[in-house]
Amino acid sequence: MEEKLLEFKEYLKRIEYMNSTTSVLYWDMRVGIPNKAILYRGEVLGYLSGETYKLQTSDTMKGFIEYFSSIKNLDKVTESMVKNAKKDYDQTKKIPEKRYVEYTVLVSRAEAAWEEAKSKSDFNIFKPFLKQVVDFNKEFIDYWGYTDNKYDTLLDIYEPGITVAKLDKVFGGLRDAIVELLGKIQKSEVKPDSSIFTTGFSKEKQEAFGLFVLNKMEYDFQAGRLDESVHPFTIEFCNTDVRITTHYHENDLKSALFGSIHEGGHAIYEQDIPDSLQGTMLGHGVSMGIHESQSRFYENILGRSKSFWEYFYPEFKKTFPEFKDISLDDFYIAMNEVLPSLIRIEADELTYSLHIIIRYEIEKELINGEIEVDDLPKVWNAKYKEYLGVEPKDDGEGVLQDMHWSGGSFGYFPSYALGNLYGAQFLGKILKDIPDFYKEIESGNLSSIHAWLKENIHKHGAVYTPSELIKMVTGEELNEKYFIEYLNKKYSDIYKF
Amino acid sequence: MEEKLLEFKEYLKRIEYMNSTTSVLYWDMRVGIPNKAILYRGEVLGYLSGETYKLQTSDTMKGFIEYFSSIKNLDKVTESMVKNAKKDYDQTKKIPEKRYVEYTVLVSRAEAAWEEAKSKSDFNIFKPFLKQVVDFNKEFIDYWGYTDNKYDTLLDIYEPGITVAKLDKVFGGLRDAIVELLGKIQKSEVKPDSSIFTTGFSKEKQEAFGLFVLNKMEYDFQAGRLDESVHPFTIEFCNTDVRITTHYHENDLKSALFGSIHEGGHAIYEQDIPDSLQGTMLGHGVSMGIHESQSRFYENILGRSKSFWEYFYPEFKKTFPEFKDISLDDFYIAMNEVLPSLIRIEADELTYSLHIIIRYEIEKELINGEIEVDDLPKVWNAKYKEYLGVEPKDDGEGVLQDMHWSGGSFGYFPSYALGNLYGAQFLGKILKDIPDFYKEIESGNLSSIHAWLKENIHKHGAVYTPSELIKMVTGEELNEKYFIEYLNKKYSDIYKF
Repeated sequence: MEEKLLEFKEYLKRIEYMNSTTSVLYWDMRVGIPNKAILYRGEVLGYLSGETYKLQTSDTMKGFIEYFSSIKNLDKVTESMVKNAKKDYDQTKKIPEKRYVEYTVLVSRAEAAWEEAKSKSDFNIFKPFLKQVVDFNKEFIDYWGYTDNKYDTLLDIYEPGITVAKLDKVFGGLRDAIVELLGKIQKSEVKPDSSIFTTGFSKEKQEAFGLFVLNKMEYDFQAGRLDESVHPFTIEFCNTDVRITTHYHENDLKSALFGSIHEGGHAIYEQDIPDSLQGTMLGHGVSMGIHESQSRFYENILGRSKSFWEYFYPEFKKTFPEFKDISLDDFYIAMNEVLPSLIRIEADELTYSLHIIIRYEIEKELINGEIEVDDLPKVWNAKYKEYLGVEPKDDGEGVLQDMHWSGGSFGYFPSYALGNLYGAQFLGKILKDIPDFYKEIESGNLSSIHAWLKENIHKHGAVYTPSELIKMVTGEELNEKYFIEYLNKKYSDIYKF
Repeated sequence: MEEKLLEFKEYLKRIEYMNSTTSVLYWDMRVGIPNKAILYRGEVLGYLSGETYKLQTSDTMKGFIEYFSSIKNLDKVTESMVKNAKKDYDQTKKIPEKRYVEYTVLVSRAEAAWEEAKSKSDFNIFKPFLKQVVDFNKEFIDYWGYTDNKYDTLLDIYEPGITVAKLDKVFGGLRDAIVELLGKIQKSEVKPDSSIFTTGFSKEKQEAFGLFVLNKMEYDFQAGRLDESVHPFTIEFCNTDVRITTHYHENDLKSALFGSIHEGGHAIYEQDIPDSLQGTMLGHGVSMGIHESQSRFYENILGRSKSFWEYFYPEFKKTFPEFKDISLDDFYIAMNEVLPSLIRIEADELTYSLHIIIRYEIEKELINGEIEVDDLPKVWNAKYKEYLGVEPKDDGEGVLQDMHWSGGSFGYFPSYALGNLYGAQFLGKILKDIPDFYKEIESGNLSSIHAWLKENIHKHGAVYTPSELIKMVTGEELNEKYFIEYLNKKYSDIYKF
């Protein structure tokens, strides 16, 4: 069996090499490709994805999976490796190749249609494509099967083990808590002034300060790099090459800064994955939700905390002397201003989750046939009115704002809010394990928290499922209690209620 | 047959996609990769080269080659495509796979040994590896066969059709002419002052002026980009993505400038290759020598001409006001200072070819067993003394200066000097076709010459062999006459003899 296991790992390494290669080509496409080369690059990526598909669905792969599935008492890593390989194999194989290819073509067209629709704020341009994408996803669920709820099958792709039953409970509690908090905040007499972040700041200075923070976070620049792209992202070629990007806006100082910290959180997770997981397909973050828990931990729990700025604000003022007369308190409050708005990616830490919950509720109903694509703008606008008290003036700032659906990524959005929940739940445990946590942050020591995250989360890669991991680390199932407590404490301090 | 041809092209496209992919990974490795990622990238590249090897040597490939080789009266493109595919196939297949793998491992070790040897200026560190590399190349020649001279087989890899018999003739004539010219120059009372280029110039200004020149040259930045790397290079992912790099030295203004122009010349060649050659494996420059003829045409024949600077010098002085009191004449003469030196890549336009001829003579004797690896430092130093009148003080500035031999690239060096010969021979024809050639350059119009090169050379890709091409374009076989005339005229003007 030892020998067979080595062979299997050698085989999986080939898939990892292909994934690494594809990632380099994507990174280059988003960061540096000349305009005229995009078409050809698409052809190359199409070819490579076909070759990877062949490796993933080959008889060799099937043979390995059958052999190892029949063996009892595998060690945990091998067991997870076999289970994941089987899941990927089944998921891919169950879709008839013809339908898979048709879907690939459709989503690339749907993306183009979405772009046009968004630029013209006209949902009708996107609608016929979206209908087909939704129908395809329903068809895939038929191939894959489901137990309780059709939408579970899609959720499981991004967050293994998460179900509608679980999300209805935790998101329901979270939604009510946020709406209640929002009421209190809107009645508060504290009025943060966030205009201080919009007076114009050079890209060079923003970059310099971003690099300073990333270095303090222990993002390893010998195993990564920071570039600029239209939308910020993190991409992993291997654990020694995890790259991040940000986007500098001269009139919005917060955007690139918190973007860099957020992507840095994702990247540190990938950089910390041990070499020993190479050749297992487990050498990456376990799920989108756990990944977001890391990025949001750095961005929000640390990056928007007063303790963090106790240390960083003096350095910040050196780079941006415009802030020299603004107190740390005012700066901190301004940075945490709560302002219900229409656009998810511009939302504050409190209302952000409401944007996600709206999308979750809509997707769930759409996939279960309770609403139709035709209803989306109406349903969307009604939910924004109900939960956030704001109404889009057109589809561009409403239902068309995100590109996710054009790519068929139903089930992905919940990860963002799950990241908030996981993160706060981890924080609960961290405060027990590191009693001086906030003091250390205040002194600019981000090493202890990094070590804790590495030891408890990062080093496991994808060996444990998200639910195994949260239970193992915190002793509890996923629940919304910690995040609600965190929000209550933070905003009652800021808004004094 | 039509259908079979489409299938063949589809198959060749897969190899092109793999080559494009590999090139992106190489580019990234030289331009942007974080230190710690180099090892893993090596593994990925190893895997990809293995997959490409499989495509190149498959039974499918063999079947296509056999089918098309039996068909008479193919059109020229298809005929060349089949001939080249067969040549590549034979070359790869004739080496036993075991020996091929051993050689791959050897050269990667030999490169590391060369690096160490060079840094310590100690040929003995490199010697045992070089012996094995030479032996391997002799063994390969046994597999591949030869007609007149063993070294011909290696020359043919880089410059199809070029032989020792031809090179002895043209290089012999060239060597004598240069040595004679050198004598006259050393007796001349004209003493150019090239110290003006070494007083310190910021990278930003060098980059700005380089971009200005590249744009005037019609290098297409929508189908390429300029970056910085340790050694300048050009790399092609497809005809719409041809990237160049340069290296900025604050104390050597000429290096990055002429480096950019040189690489720009290579890149324009690749950018001009027509889309119709996709899927033929002929969609790239035909040989190293013809490629160098394009880069050296732009770098030397244009870039170091007085006409070029008639137009560019005013703009140059705006960027570098240090030159405001230096006349165009003095500037032009300084740029063309002839100074026999030890290091090939720092050589002036006249003595450069001597560096190449020395390497050619040595390689020829080495491959034919007339000298041994042990003799190299002695032979090297004697030739430098004889041809250039200079003697290396150690192996670092002597026989160890180039990395080519560590990679087994015997037969490659002659391309550089062939580029000079081809370029001057093209110039002879250009002066007939565009009588106002130098006037157009003086007015900053580089479009006519670009159009001429595109129409006569670039658009053919690798459809014609170098000897077919030079004959077709100039009506003559390759000869040294034009380059010698060009050198005589240029240097007698500058050094007044």
